[in-house]
Amino acid sequence: MIKVGIVGGTGYTGIELLRILARHPQAELVAITSRKEAGTPVAELFPSLRGAVALAYSDPAKSALAQCDVVFFATPNTVAMGEAKVLVEAGVRVVDLSADFRIKNPAEWEKWYKVKHAAPGLLAQAVYGLPEVNRAKIKGARLVANPGCYPTAVQLGLLPLAKAGAVDLDHLIADAKSGVSGAGKKSEGHLLFSEASDNFKAYGTSGHRHWPEIRQELDAAAGRSVGLTFVPHLVPMIRGIHATLYARITADIEFQRLYEDRYRGEPFVDVLPSGSEPDTRSVRGTNTCRIAIHRPHGADMLVVISVIDNLAKGASGQAVQNMNIMFGFEETMGLSQLAVVP
Amino acid sequence: MIKVGIVGGTGYTGIELLRILARHPQAELVAITSRKEAGTPVAELFPSLRGAVALAYSDPAKSALAQCDVVFFATPNTVAMGEAKVLVEAGVRVVDLSADFRIKNPAEWEKWYKVKHAAPGLLAQAVYGLPEVNRAKIKGARLVANPGCYPTAVQLGLLPLAKAGAVDLDHLIADAKSGVSGAGKKSEGHLLFSEASDNFKAYGTSGHRHWPEIRQELDAAAGRSVGLTFVPHLVPMIRGIHATLYARITADIEFQRLYEDRYRGEPFVDVLPSGSEPDTRSVRGTNTCRIAIHRPHGADMLVVISVIDNLAKGASGQAVQNMNIMFGFEETMGLSQLAVVP
Amino acid sequence: MIKVGIVGGTGYTGIELLRILARHPQAELVAITSRKEAGTPVAELFPSLRGAVALAYSDPAKSALAQCDVVFFATPNTVAMGEAKVLVEAGVRVVDLSADFRIKNPAEWEKWYKVKHAAPGLLAQAVYGLPEVNRAKIKGARLVANPGCYPTAVQLGLLPLAKAGAVDLDHLIADAKSGVSGAGKKSEGHLLFSEASDNFKAYGTSGHRHWPEIRQELDAAAGRSVGLTFVPHLVPMIRGIHATLYARITADIEFQRLYEDRYRGEPFVDVLPSGSEPDTRSVRGTNTCRIAIHRPHGADMLVVISVIDNLAKGASGQAVQNMNIMFGFEETMGLSQLAVVP
Amino acid sequence: MIKVGIVGGTGYTGIELLRILARHPQAELVAITSRKEAGTPVAELFPSLRGAVALAYSDPAKSALAQCDVVFFATPNTVAMGEAKVLVEAGVRVVDLSADFRIKNPAEWEKWYKVKHAAPGLLAQAVYGLPEVNRAKIKGARLVANPGCYPTAVQLGLLPLAKAGAVDLDHLIADAKSGVSGAGKKSEGHLLFSEASDNFKAYGTSGHRHWPEIRQELDAAAGRSVGLTFVPHLVPMIRGIHATLYARITADIEFQRLYEDRYRGEPFVDVLPSGSEPDTRSVRGTNTCRIAIHRPHGADMLVVISVIDNLAKGASGQAVQNMNIMFGFEETMGLSQLAVVP
Repeated sequence: MIKVGIVGGTGYTGIELLRILARHPQAELVAITSRKEAGTPVAELFPSLRGAVALAYSDPAKSALAQCDVVFFATPNTVAMGEAKVLVEAGVRVVDLSADFRIKNPAEWEKWYKVKHAAPGLLAQAVYGLPEVNRAKIKGARLVANPGCYPTAVQLGLLPLAKAGAVDLDHLIADAKSGVSGAGKKSEGHLLFSEASDNFKAYGTSGHRHWPEIRQELDAAAGRSVGLTFVPHLVPMIRGIHATLYARITADIEFQRLYEDRYRGEPFVDVLPSGSEPDTRSVRGTNTCRIAIHRPHGADMLVVISVIDNLAKGASGQAVQNMNIMFGFEETMGLSQLAVVP
Repeated sequence: MIKVGIVGGTGYTGIELLRILARHPQAELVAITSRKEAGTPVAELFPSLRGAVALAYSDPAKSALAQCDVVFFATPNTVAMGEAKVLVEAGVRVVDLSADFRIKNPAEWEKWYKVKHAAPGLLAQAVYGLPEVNRAKIKGARLVANPGCYPTAVQLGLLPLAKAGAVDLDHLIADAKSGVSGAGKKSEGHLLFSEASDNFKAYGTSGHRHWPEIRQELDAAAGRSVGLTFVPHLVPMIRGIHATLYARITADIEFQRLYEDRYRGEPFVDVLPSGSEPDTRSVRGTNTCRIAIHRPHGADMLVVISVIDNLAKGASGQAVQNMNIMFGFEETMGLSQLAVVP
Repeated sequence: MIKVGIVGGTGYTGIELLRILARHPQAELVAITSRKEAGTPVAELFPSLRGAVALAYSDPAKSALAQCDVVFFATPNTVAMGEAKVLVEAGVRVVDLSADFRIKNPAEWEKWYKVKHAAPGLLAQAVYGLPEVNRAKIKGARLVANPGCYPTAVQLGLLPLAKAGAVDLDHLIADAKSGVSGAGKKSEGHLLFSEASDNFKAYGTSGHRHWPEIRQELDAAAGRSVGLTFVPHLVPMIRGIHATLYARITADIEFQRLYEDRYRGEPFVDVLPSGSEPDTRSVRGTNTCRIAIHRPHGADMLVVISVIDNLAKGASGQAVQNMNIMFGFEETMGLSQLAVVP
Repeated sequence: MIKVGIVGGTGYTGIELLRILARHPQAELVAITSRKEAGTPVAELFPSLRGAVALAYSDPAKSALAQCDVVFFATPNTVAMGEAKVLVEAGVRVVDLSADFRIKNPAEWEKWYKVKHAAPGLLAQAVYGLPEVNRAKIKGARLVANPGCYPTAVQLGLLPLAKAGAVDLDHLIADAKSGVSGAGKKSEGHLLFSEASDNFKAYGTSGHRHWPEIRQELDAAAGRSVGLTFVPHLVPMIRGIHATLYARITADIEFQRLYEDRYRGEPFVDVLPSGSEPDTRSVRGTNTCRIAIHRPHGADMLVVISVIDNLAKGASGQAVQNMNIMFGFEETMGLSQLAVVP
């Protein structure tokens, strides 16, 4: 059993962490902080956790975070970069679910997040927490930058191509669709039921913060700079990301096999038989990424479909997967729940 | 480990059984039948089960049902009454999720289901599978009639009153609302997304098959005939039942305490603090029933709210709870998953 | 043509007014105010109005409201009671869509709305704008208090009974369900898509502001004090109210005929044939109220179903109906649009 | 006033035609046929039309279709090609909303629709009913092939490029998303609420019937064969198509101006200001197509967004627009309704 703490557990990645950790056989939840909700029992805010989480929110200043083996930051951007340092220095291992440590170049980060980075030193030691790429480094990491939801879905769908070439890497296209919870529990107008329901729209077409994150990692995989057009869309569903990826084929290789080989043995990447069209609900509440490869009409355009649950493999599930790797647990521990369908 | 079979596992109660049983530590799924899908791997029909269920559907005629310890009927009404007998006589214990064995009086059953009952003999030995009432009988039952979804929610909400009196038992009202999956995976017009979405309506106001089932059990609890008005409604959500129950108060007792006392120790009934308004998602995918008691404006009208997941506590979850009781397992085994929220 | 102004046209009743008035043959929209959006073209905020509304929001202080023939207040509660007076005194006729002038007794109003009423004098002359009851008074009114959405649905469903008796008027029950837009365009947590979608819950069980409004009008119709239990619920749909009303029958009259007689000739109340179950989408975007009467199992409980669109007949549609009456236009003018189904 | 008939008015394009025509000032609905529903009043099947449509369905054999000025076929594919001929020869003008006359080459049509074409002669005289391209021909047409929903959205978004070049016409990409009503009122499993809700998926990736239709028209506009990858997706909403279109830029022209020039004066195509992201609800229930042009990060990839209502501009609205053109009415007559938002 390890001692686990959560900073800022009132948002959607927070409750998802609680749901998973409350049933994790090796994790003991000892602290969850919230300035606003200090003193409130977690299960009062989230009645679905009645009987499963006995903890109350605690004031960050008085919490037992420093006694934890691992602390998750489920906070808005810019919080972790200020607060993680003291924990890391105290020997606590940290998994940050926000964007603070995902982009290696502080200048690039500052351009997209509009504030000065508070911990460029930590940034250097942070490990980008995509297990399918960085498993070995995650194992020894003191600070893991948990990937964004879109970046997880898009990268898992494009990484084999970035490595193998065989497609026009200057004109990759990621047409991505996300459930509304991807935007967090913010009370913003366009996230209201009456606005988002029975409706569909693109957003961030001119520039989205996940674009530089995806490019950084694809560039690294390709060993060169790739060109990527990324258009996210808001879907009237709660959870789920569906990335439809397009790449012009430049060399005739066996793409289906490329993907099967790349992900063989990966516990959370499921490459479907050729011709499949995975739906987002098949991964709802699970840590699985399902991928399918298409080549419509035998033409020279590859279509890759990649689906995940934005709060699970796209956030809290992946964070627990990283924790499992860091502490030598079975990588799937606590993450074997099946999707609730229908 | 016990050997488990499922008859008719292509509908919604079937996939819900599969989801639960695939992770149940004491159940080994050995047969699942479907005439139409014989030979198809279960995970091909339900990709959410990829990697978790290796079985294929088998032809009922050639299946290994007779070798099972327990067989679940997840079939449309009128199938189990024809096929359960041979299994029961072979010593297989049966849990029927359909309506075939729920109503004790064959004439009453035939009035509502419009066909002659095929096994009135079995009917006599069937145990009505509401554990909160019949736990002891379920333990030894050879055939369990698993309750309907509305009846589960309404009974758990009204049983303490039926027993205690203190309200006008001649004019109970159950205004019930159900998610669309409650109607099953039938391809009927009004269940289409374009019909049911962004819409709300009552149905079955003049008479619903769950009405005699509820009355039979309330009558038994009250030791007299009760009067019940039952109006079901279709809600644009997938799962969930919300029963809002009204009873005119005739004697001034402590209703909150009545409910707390009645359900103390029950693993799957959660009586909320006074003033609560449980939402259906707090029980989504779980076997829990949440109940709250209100007395608006201190007037002489009691309002009881009872929420369940129609496919879990209202069908397959309760069926597994019954299996656990029948085989002496921990009653909560395989049923501890938390609701996926949001 | 009359000159029309709108105060506070950025919320849901505001855009619904704009949608209707932009196509009204006798209304010329000359001013729409919003402190926050002053200068912004209306069609920029609401692209669905591109090409139909050329106006920009204006600062309330500099607006042309005083030159209007009629001004609608589509503001949060407590605004109109402060601002309507100067307009009324300038001879502008006012229709207030908020709750400020609905409750005749200032003390009662203050109890529910938690502030002192700013214009008790105006309150006395305000006419409650339910045309099916107060048509004659509305014709000459200088200030119309447009009814709330729940009160409209519940009253139209219960008024014939309140008048006729024949039911137990001490124990009326209104189990009401509303689409999410009924709560307005507030950025509140529980109205987020991720909270309200795929979910169902009661709210305000212990007391809702529409309760005293309904009771006031039922009392008036009955000529005595009635008892009413009112439980509102939140439905995952955008628009629509479905009120399921229960009344214990005390005298055996022809209820179907009672309703048909009461509403004969009413352009916006449609009493359905016996046995009908109207759905909310059949009135979506329209000013119609559809009503159906049931007597399940022939027992002594009457069930009345009443459906409206909360933003149309429950707010802006009814407001325009009132305007039509006030200015001697055909009552249905601008309100003949059919529901978009599916 | 012209006499209007509808063949097969029980599906979604049928009820949408009814909704529009019932309020059209120059159309008198004289016949609507349905073998199955013969004798049933239309308003009984569609209560939203109560008070607006007095007609009952009639048996096709006994209907007054031949006395009509225009007949709409709102039938499944392969019906109109058998039945339109006798009407056309009798001088009745026909608008076919099905796919029977959309593809000029009978062999190509037969490849996608899997049956022999029954009226290749009529095919030759059929005019493809996209007013923005074929207005003059539609005016004199005896038989109009009303375009498909995806083809309308994709063509309006790509036609200016097909004409102008300046992009790689060999690798156009149309990532299209549709509401569920686009699949019609068929009782198919995946269209059920419990399947389509809270879910997102691609379908028809390997080949969709609208692909040859789109290519035929783009080829014609470009005067050469274009390459198109078309991936449709199912969105959990009732109505709406959102096409996100990608084209690699090969020459640096002013794309925003290209679109504004192309569609200037078009009553139903609204080119938005640069940077806009139209949502589908802004056109819900209307005949408008909204288009926005993007060039993310100033790179060499053009992104065009095109939204329509699949049942209006994508079917019945466009059909009435065609009727207006054919009979010399104002093109917008009966089509000026604004979107119901929210």
